[in-house]
Parts: sequence; structure tokens; C-alpha cells
Amino acid sequence: MPFNLSDPTTPSSATQDGVKPYFYFEVIHTSKKSNARVGRIHTPHGIIETPGFVAVGTNATIKGLDSVLMEQLPIDLMFCNTYHLMLQPGAETIQKMGGLHSFMNRKKPLITDSGGFQVFSLSYGGVTSELKSKGKKKNDGSVLKISEEGVLFRSYRDGSKLLLTPEKSVEAQKMLGADIIIPFDELPPYHMGEEALKRSLERTHRWEKRSMDAHLKNPQKQAMYAVIHGGIHKAYRLLSCQTLSALPFDGFAIGGSLGKTREEMETMLDYTIPALDPKKPRHLLGIGDLASLDMAVPLGLDTFDSAYPTKAARHGMALTQNGAITIDQGIYKDDPRPLDAGCLCHTCQHYTRAYLHHLLKAKELTLYTLMSLHNLYFMGKTMERIREKILNDEI
Amino acid sequence: MPFNLSDPTTPSSATQDGVKPYFYFEVIHTSKKSNARVGRIHTPHGIIETPGFVAVGTNATIKGLDSVLMEQLPIDLMFCNTYHLMLQPGAETIQKMGGLHSFMNRKKPLITDSGGFQVFSLSYGGVTSELKSKGKKKNDGSVLKISEEGVLFRSYRDGSKLLLTPEKSVEAQKMLGADIIIPFDELPPYHMGEEALKRSLERTHRWEKRSMDAHLKNPQKQAMYAVIHGGIHKAYRLLSCQTLSALPFDGFAIGGSLGKTREEMETMLDYTIPALDPKKPRHLLGIGDLASLDMAVPLGLDTFDSAYPTKAARHGMALTQNGAITIDQGIYKDDPRPLDAGCLCHTCQHYTRAYLHHLLKAKELTLYTLMSLHNLYFMGKTMERIREKILNDEI
Repeated sequence: MPFNLSDPTTPSSATQDGVKPYFYFEVIHTSKKSNARVGRIHTPHGIIETPGFVAVGTNATIKGLDSVLMEQLPIDLMFCNTYHLMLQPGAETIQKMGGLHSFMNRKKPLITDSGGFQVFSLSYGGVTSELKSKGKKKNDGSVLKISEEGVLFRSYRDGSKLLLTPEKSVEAQKMLGADIIIPFDELPPYHMGEEALKRSLERTHRWEKRSMDAHLKNPQKQAMYAVIHGGIHKAYRLLSCQTLSALPFDGFAIGGSLGKTREEMETMLDYTIPALDPKKPRHLLGIGDLASLDMAVPLGLDTFDSAYPTKAARHGMALTQNGAITIDQGIYKDDPRPLDAGCLCHTCQHYTRAYLHHLLKAKELTLYTLMSLHNLYFMGKTMERIREKILNDEI
Repeated sequence: MPFNLSDPTTPSSATQDGVKPYFYFEVIHTSKKSNARVGRIHTPHGIIETPGFVAVGTNATIKGLDSVLMEQLPIDLMFCNTYHLMLQPGAETIQKMGGLHSFMNRKKPLITDSGGFQVFSLSYGGVTSELKSKGKKKNDGSVLKISEEGVLFRSYRDGSKLLLTPEKSVEAQKMLGADIIIPFDELPPYHMGEEALKRSLERTHRWEKRSMDAHLKNPQKQAMYAVIHGGIHKAYRLLSCQTLSALPFDGFAIGGSLGKTREEMETMLDYTIPALDPKKPRHLLGIGDLASLDMAVPLGLDTFDSAYPTKAARHGMALTQNGAITIDQGIYKDDPRPLDAGCLCHTCQHYTRAYLHHLLKAKELTLYTLMSLHNLYFMGKTMERIREKILNDEI
């Protein structure tokens, strides 16, 4: 391994005795044309090929797909949300059932977030609607108080008051036992003033340090990625990279406000990525649409999580090599073709657009399964093609 | 084949030239202990082992299960509803897509009903609620007029007026192309007076004759079962058996009002079954709960369709060898056992009660798939056990 254990940035998963660490990243090839790279993230539950798409299964399931079906797709990593799982069924219950892998019967790698993003985004109404609000800070009242200690909020399930702290988030993620965990952070609203943003950033850094300290007490074969914050302020992003790079994180996740437009996000990534250790994997939080992938892969991002392909699927939108199609349109009523010509997914191999159109019109549950299967397969194959292009220096 | 082609009761599927007909029933064994029998119904899409459970997939899908998954279950026959499919996507569309098997990608046998039962039961609110109404005839207004010609009704989808006749029902079922089709009949309300019931019965017999005439013009490798009516009136049931036995039906379905209680149904079946040709298969329409199977199999019924196992599944009820369990109960929150000990279904092999309890509490779609898979597998295995017991003369 290329890390020096006397260096404070050496990952938490590194080992001292020449034994292979339980988590490590190897870059197979960096493109001659860009900073795009093909790599492999080794985890206790197998390899994540990068660049890779990460499917989002908030409640320990991809909606409409069971774990066995899910593992047959060309997608290595799945994202579960600690906030939701803490409230239902509870991290203790999942621990009692042998951890998240055992609970949901998943053999491949898992990543959990800290719960912070969900607490804030459910309260602020998500990044998109918060952006639309143009600075009128919306808060549905579920975030009661943010202090140095953590966030006091109301459960979206039963209204009970809960305090989430870095230590509690890490404790919950230890109980869940995913391969990759995330330190507790604050999601500052996009329209926050500079001074308030800086105070939030510094507190987030302290929270991430506390999260790492809690993690190091019991690494439990998990890796922890830093969450780089700083909004679209170059100085803050660089400060975040610098501060968090001094800690033994195993990888980096780019989080916080990523900008109002793809161009803003690109500008931000353009100065942020070079400030991160190239030996560690880089994840882009919550972004996985095709245009963003085209933009972000050449900058050197390795993994991308997004609920978009499965959410779109449930609304009848299929991703195809010729663009997205919405299966509820009348033109598909008697279309005998598969969703995507040449696609080898279960759905395209067995069902026509006409049948899927009918399932949508008849409001049949089977639609959600078949469309989600296709869109996730499509994302997996898209990443395979991207990796091949990088290996050929075409990206 | 044991039929004489000069006999008017010889099935519509019989052949003249010694070639095996495309549809025939063979009784493998009749129990020494009862009239229970083990048999095989041969169809153009394979064999239906009897006694057999028939899964109900109203809109050309079992809710939450795709056809590939469905065919892996130990269930040979699936029921689709002509009324629903006529309205969405339309029988013409399904015909254009190559028929129902091709449309839904099913290789195994299919049966469709005539649409009559659905028109009436949707209007009257179903047998159960009609029974509860104690004779106050409920009609939501969707059945506008019943005449010798047929039934004028309003579509539940768009309110348009439609006339369903025996000829139209058969025409639609020809377009759908199921292996077994059903003649058009009237479902008289349970509380109908004797005189009105007799008029309804005689009209139903005329409608069934017209259905058979339409079928014979183009048998198209389909078999047609008579629907035996007569409510719980012995004389009417026997009249129905006698009248319909004189026509070349390929099998019999016991329909109409089956009684208020299981005892009433048993009494009715007890005098009805012996009046039917034992060489032809006998289906019990819409009944498939375990207690009714225990009662009806020894009387010589061969197939049973019911939406109950899948509907119960979607409400979190699992059928097990130790009785039904409702997975939403708190006692299952951390229960590491499968739904049913020793069950080899996909769900029991891969998931715990705790996980299924969580999926229900989190309102996750995957629950519907996993529970439905289990309950249908359970029904298939239950019928296998019943067949084995009959072969051993234990039933």
C-alpha cells in the first residue's frame, strides 16, 4: 500500500503488519486525456469498480427490488440512509439481526450516510425546493435546534424529539455495519450568508473530527469518507479539503451545496478535486444524472449515488441509449419493441413497451419492479462503457 | 380419448382423426376414500396438474410479480379478467401484440373469464357485500340494462356505455387467446326471488349456448368450460348441469351464488358434482381458501382460483403450515426466522420475518413481491401435498 503509517492522512483502514487492509483503493488507469480514472475499491464485501454508479435504497431495499434481484445487476455499491433506518426499524434492531448486510440479505458492499443530510434536507424541503425558495429559509419545524453538540429534531415518523450528534451517528452506523460510513455534518442552506456559512463549515469540520475519533475507537472493518463542504466558495472548499485531508479518512465525498446549476457544480469540482489526495476514492453525493456523469468523470470522481434512475422508473421514465422515454405516452400502446434496443436486462429481454405501457395504465405494481430493473441495469452498463472509454483514453 | 364424436357432449376440443386433441383431461387416480381425484389437464401451453390452485392476475400480471418469476412457482394455471383487459389495454391491442401469452410473456396455461361476473360484481359490490346487504339489491348504477341481447353497462374507467353480449365476450376471449375460456353468464344476486332466478338461469343457459356457438365457429385451440348456475337451489343446479352437459363444453366451472356459508356451498356441491360428467375437469370459481379446499377436493373438484393468497400477502398476511401470520405485529420486529419453517420459496430462503416486518412498516413495495411469492408458493405446495394424499387414498 502506498501509505506511510506515520503520516496522519493514512486511512483508518490501513494495517501495520503488511497484511492487506480490509479497505483500499487501487487506480488501474488514469486517462491521458483527462483526470478520469478507472479503479477498484476493495471492501470486506467485495470490489466496487470505478467510476461506479451507487444505487439508493433508503430503507434497506431498492423500491420494488429484493436484494437477490439487486445483486444480479451490474452495480456494486448500494446506499442506505441512516436517518430512516434509525427511526425504522432502529439501528439496534438491525444490529440484533446481524447488521445491515445480514438484515437485508446483501452480499455486496454497502454505504450509509450520517443522517445529517436527511435531517436537514427533510426540514428544508430538499436542495431543489430550497433553491427555488431564493433565500427565504424554509424550515418545516422538524429541525428544532443546532448546537455544538448536534442537531435536535423531530422524528418524521412519530414527532418525538431526537438529538443527533457525531458520536450518535457513528454509533448508529457501527450498528448498521456498512462497508463505508460517513461522518456527521451540517447541510447549510444554499442561501446562507458568508459568515454563517463559515461558522457552519467550521462546526462541520469539528463534527467530522469527532466522528472520526468515534470511528477509530472501533473501526470494525468499516471505512470512513470525509464529507468536503464549503458550498460554491473556493476558499471554503479548499479549507475543507485541507482540514479534512489532515485526518485519516479513507476517501472523500463531495457534499454540501453543489451549486444552482451544473456549471456552478463543475467550477466547484474543478478547483476542489485537485486539492484531494489522488490515492483516495472520491464520491459525489446525490448526483448521478447522465449529464453530470459526463461532466464529473473527467474531473476524477469515482462514485456517484442517485435515487434518480429508480424514481424516474417508478414514474414510467426509462433511460435508453437514445435518451429517456416516458412509457405512459400513447405511442407505446402497441409498440412491440423492448424499452432499449440491444439492452440485455431482464425487462428488455422479456417485455415489450406495449406491456409496460399497459402496466402503467392499469396502475400495476409490477411496473415499478420492471422499470427499476431496467434503469439500474442501464446505469451499470453506462458506467462499464465509461470505464472502457477511460481505459482507451477516450474520456 | 374416451369420447364418442357422435355424442353431442363430446368436447369442442376433440379431434376426429385419432390425433391427440389440443385439450384433454386425464384422471390419474380417484381416491378410494372419497371422490377426490388426481389428474392432468393437457393444454396447448402445457399441463395443469389437478387438484390445482389457479392464481389470479386480473390485469395480465400477478400484482408485484412478473411472468418470469411467476412461472418459477409451482402453479400451472393463471386467471386473467376479460372485463378489465377489454377496457385496458383493449382486447384488440392484446391480439395485435400476439395474444395474451405473448403480451405478458407467459409460457404456461391461461384461463380468462367472460367479463360477465366482473360487470355484475363490480356493480353489485361483490358477493360478500351483496350478502351483507340482505336483499336490498345494491347497484352502483354501472349495470344499466340486462336484456336478452346482453348487458349494457358503464365502463369503470371512463364511464362510457358498453354492451357486452355472449358473442362479444367470446370474440374478446378469442383475441386474448387463453387456453381455457368461459361463456358469458349473468351473476344473479344471492337474494333474488325464485321466479326471477329461474328467468335469469334460463337466460344464462341461452347465453352460454350462444357463447359455445360463437366458440365453435373458430375454436382456435381454446377449450370452453360451462358455468353451472342455479344458486343454492338443488333443482336449478341440476337443471343447469343437465342443460349445459348437452353441449360440447370441455369442462365445468361451478359459478353463480355459492351460498352464504361454507356449509351451504358444501351442500350445493354435494348434489351438483355427481350430475357432471366425471371425464371432464371441474373448476370452482373464485374459491381457494384452505378450508374450502379441504371441503371441495374430496367432492371431486379439480381446480380453484382465488385472489385471496395474493391479496392477503399485500396486507402482510403470510400463509404458513402453522396457520396464517400477520407480519405487521410487533412480535416479528426482530424475529430471525423465515415466514414458514422448512419452506423452500425464494422469500423464506432469503429473508427473515424481521426484514419483512420492516418492509411493511416502511411501506416498501418490495414487501408485496416477497409476500406474494411466498403465499403463491405455499398454495402450490399445498396442492402438491393434496395430490400426494389422494394418490395414497388418504383424502
